[in-house]
Amino acid sequence: MDFVHTTLGQRVLFGSGKAAIHVAGEVRRLSAGRIMVVASSRHEHLAETVCRNLDVAHWFDQVVQHVPVETVAAARAAAADHGVDLLLSVGGGSAVGLAKAIALTTGLPIIAVPTTYAGSEATNVWGTAAQRTKTTGVDDRVLPASVVYDATLTLSLPAGLSVASGLNSLAHCIDSLWAPNADPINLALALEGARALTQALPRITRDPQSLEAREHALYACYLAAVAFGSAGSGLHHKICHVLGGMYNLPHAETHATVLPHVLAFNAPAVPELAARLAASLGRPAVAGDEPAESAVAALGSFRDAVDAPRRLADYGFSATDIPDAVDRIRQVAPPSNPRPVTADSLTALLTNALTGTAPAPHSRLGSRLN
Amino acid sequence: MDFVHTTLGQRVLFGSGKAAIHVAGEVRRLSAGRIMVVASSRHEHLAETVCRNLDVAHWFDQVVQHVPVETVAAARAAAADHGVDLLLSVGGGSAVGLAKAIALTTGLPIIAVPTTYAGSEATNVWGTAAQRTKTTGVDDRVLPASVVYDATLTLSLPAGLSVASGLNSLAHCIDSLWAPNADPINLALALEGARALTQALPRITRDPQSLEAREHALYACYLAAVAFGSAGSGLHHKICHVLGGMYNLPHAETHATVLPHVLAFNAPAVPELAARLAASLGRPAVAGDEPAESAVAALGSFRDAVDAPRRLADYGFSATDIPDAVDRIRQVAPPSNPRPVTADSLTALLTNALTGTAPAPHSRLGSRLN
Repeated sequence: MDFVHTTLGQRVLFGSGKAAIHVAGEVRRLSAGRIMVVASSRHEHLAETVCRNLDVAHWFDQVVQHVPVETVAAARAAAADHGVDLLLSVGGGSAVGLAKAIALTTGLPIIAVPTTYAGSEATNVWGTAAQRTKTTGVDDRVLPASVVYDATLTLSLPAGLSVASGLNSLAHCIDSLWAPNADPINLALALEGARALTQALPRITRDPQSLEAREHALYACYLAAVAFGSAGSGLHHKICHVLGGMYNLPHAETHATVLPHVLAFNAPAVPELAARLAASLGRPAVAGDEPAESAVAALGSFRDAVDAPRRLADYGFSATDIPDAVDRIRQVAPPSNPRPVTADSLTALLTNALTGTAPAPHSRLGSRLN
Repeated sequence: MDFVHTTLGQRVLFGSGKAAIHVAGEVRRLSAGRIMVVASSRHEHLAETVCRNLDVAHWFDQVVQHVPVETVAAARAAAADHGVDLLLSVGGGSAVGLAKAIALTTGLPIIAVPTTYAGSEATNVWGTAAQRTKTTGVDDRVLPASVVYDATLTLSLPAGLSVASGLNSLAHCIDSLWAPNADPINLALALEGARALTQALPRITRDPQSLEAREHALYACYLAAVAFGSAGSGLHHKICHVLGGMYNLPHAETHATVLPHVLAFNAPAVPELAARLAASLGRPAVAGDEPAESAVAALGSFRDAVDAPRRLADYGFSATDIPDAVDRIRQVAPPSNPRPVTADSLTALLTNALTGTAPAPHSRLGSRLN
């Protein structure tokens, strides 16, 4: 046990239908009087619900994906012009991402009200985009002081998008097992996130209006984000970033498709973690279990229950893309990965993900993934 | 899901044999130059090991149990006299408790190096004693900025004391399940703490010099303290505080003896939590299990493995003390307890704890504990 773990101080307020009350309470607690709301016009009615007990100094609705630097400049200027002393973001990753970019230079506190499962509200990671270049960084000033979760705000998130986003969160949890800064503390949070997600997501596919399932999904995605923010990007995220960047594959679907193959690849090298993951995914160990197989089977059952995406071929990736992708992934694969990431093993992994071949752990299937 | 959870920001550094390196790194990170060490003369050699890379401005070794106000005054004066800008505590709860009392009025940052499993280093709770009156409070200023865990510093803790202290930590975990501020986040930390403790403590009883077991115990007790600091005192702690205060019973032994009886009382009212606790204690649910019985049996097996204390009668408590204790406990029992705390149920609970009757959950045994 040799690690350094930084726990980020943050208040998290959970309550369905309570966003307006919780936000007003946090504004008072933070002694703020000049609030700038950061919410896209698409989320205007949700933001109005959230702000119904507040005097708002300025509404900033120019929220764009990937946080372009031009938008950031405009938002910082608006905050200065209106003498703002607190940022209130309402929406998904783009809204809180813009609030973080403002806080980065101004130090303004943020109250984040998430309406998706993106999880950015629980991390100190910021990112902006200039032209085609993305810049990211870590700064405690961008961590929202308070996060207000209200599952009623997520009821309009379609079931399909909820599942894709939830699977993205599950990837946060599972990749945390072997990420560069993995430690027992973020592992515990990741496993609890995986447990709660496994219970919540199938219920959302059956009944997208289930407030209880939505609450558990929000809770799980929050934990997933805390774990991932602490553990960093593991092999899975490196693969998905390469695929997203080089071939413009859709974010959530890429994560959903690649995840079981990375698990099948890594699980045999970390049997104790695999056993704990399997238990979190609803398959407690019994005598004679092969932990890696249990974990892969548990993820497979869960993916069946939510009808998860299966083939990268469905999203524009093709067999001819594999060699270049393998080269690029090998350059960025974390040295901490529990198994060496070879060209052969990556080629096998991507080929299976391309065609939707059922993943199976290496331990029983010889060199297929090796 | 309706709760407010405050995560306290703190850095935790784990590494056996690394205390001196980690402390020196944290001193640099906090830009401190005038360090006061708070460590009892009994811990002098441990403190010297920890400080071997530091210039120490002042050593304060007047560390007394329960943090008497006279000692606090002397320590605050010493910090002022020596122009101290950082407090470094080395030792158990009394050392960090004194550092917290200094920080409460001075705002000085604390680096805590625990040498026991007390857990105070992970909370924002402070306490001082004047005459026979204890004053406690909560203030974020007393939370150590950094905690440096080095299991080599705990090797001299005798096995018996390690078990008693570890069982005290397990009580932190289990009481967190139904404490007044219990929420899913502190529950997850509590269950992980219980899991790790259940694995570590029996190994320490078999081999007190096992560094790996000591590391896991430290880690578990840290999580237990974080969970308990967040969830607050549940029924178990209220009972033990009354018994300790009124009859001067020994702290750790009282906790160890009372815990299974409180679990047997509450578990039938919270079957889902009981099932999760049982799994954490090493007994995953199988079909047909009664969760409360599983949890009680799992705790029983664990207690057998570490030869836990069983009878309050061994520590000076007697049957004639029960009526007064029941009266007092009923006044302080948390209204949030999952079962109503009646005079009859408390009398039965204390009678069983007095005589060491094996606890059994109410669900199968009718009214015995009701």
